[in-house]
Amino acid sequence: MTEPEMTETERHKARMARKKAIVDEKVKKADQSRGVVIVLTGAGKGKSSSAFGMVARALGHDMKVGIVQFIKGKFATGEEAFFRRFPEVEYHVMGEGFTWETQDRERDEEAARAAWDIARQQLANPQLAMVVLDELNIVLKYKYLSVDEVIAALTDRPEHQHVIITGRNAPPDLIEVADTVTDSKLIKHAFKAGVKAQKGIEL
Amino acid sequence: MTEPEMTETERHKARMARKKAIVDEKVKKADQSRGVVIVLTGAGKGKSSSAFGMVARALGHDMKVGIVQFIKGKFATGEEAFFRRFPEVEYHVMGEGFTWETQDRERDEEAARAAWDIARQQLANPQLAMVVLDELNIVLKYKYLSVDEVIAALTDRPEHQHVIITGRNAPPDLIEVADTVTDSKLIKHAFKAGVKAQKGIEL
Repeated sequence: MTEPEMTETERHKARMARKKAIVDEKVKKADQSRGVVIVLTGAGKGKSSSAFGMVARALGHDMKVGIVQFIKGKFATGEEAFFRRFPEVEYHVMGEGFTWETQDRERDEEAARAAWDIARQQLANPQLAMVVLDELNIVLKYKYLSVDEVIAALTDRPEHQHVIITGRNAPPDLIEVADTVTDSKLIKHAFKAGVKAQKGIEL
Repeated sequence: MTEPEMTETERHKARMARKKAIVDEKVKKADQSRGVVIVLTGAGKGKSSSAFGMVARALGHDMKVGIVQFIKGKFATGEEAFFRRFPEVEYHVMGEGFTWETQDRERDEEAARAAWDIARQQLANPQLAMVVLDELNIVLKYKYLSVDEVIAALTDRPEHQHVIITGRNAPPDLIEVADTVTDSKLIKHAFKAGVKAQKGIEL
């Protein structure tokens, strides 16, 4: 039966059968099982949320997770309040506000170094199936930490550990070593339209 | 003191003070408090995870959340196992697999319609501070539901309810009514490099 003789329903079925064959082939080819490094970068909203969603998914599989937040907002955040409830989560927040809040490079560097010390321990801990390094890219951009040091710790980590790194301006060397990289663009932002940050929606 | 006479530390401080003034001004201007519609679209990974991270954040603030997943993967997902633990979450999964799994347009349409009936109830429920319509964009792309009907329900929803809509190919009319839109691009994908989906990382 040629395509023009098919009904809409039949065409849909044929299209979907072709798609399934492609998907099945891809799934067959993907046969490696190992931890991956996922980088979420770009100016779009939802990068950190995405990392926290992956934490929720991991907890759904009873995995243990480490989280280091390299940039702390001014206010206590909902995700911190939430994930601290779980004994499977090691949660560490770097003790300072945004760089433009402290306005003190030396203090920022010290705080980044202290947070990185915790992160390195997590990246060396085979009990942690997932490690989230939230806003690490910002810290790398300001050169509070060296990207080489970070890449060395990623390379040496336990084979099955997944790592999620967020923040704008991911350095090219980090993108190079990552397995999955998403670059998100902000098309529209409620905050710019005059909507303020609200409970549950930290714009 | 002119810039060349400043030390690196002083320059940093001056730059950050200018940045803080800009940020403070923006925060002051954003004075509306209302629910927002957030659309997460594009081919990048982590869109649904981002929505689930926002759910975690909302739960951290003791808010009630509705979730409708319009496309269910073949396997039970970690996020479903996790969020079903919370009585504050109304979780509904559309009963069918991917469109290329069923290969049956009529069955897909019926399933989409049933899921949308639940979503409409959630969008009319002022007790729900947040509603996630996961992969709704896919359903709209295949025209299993009309975008006008979706927009009407969004327009009529309780004033303080936040809505997160995910999936590739968000229709232009939906982007038009949304408050915040992130378009994510896939730069690299572990799955394409031969890494298979694993517990906690559904590639």
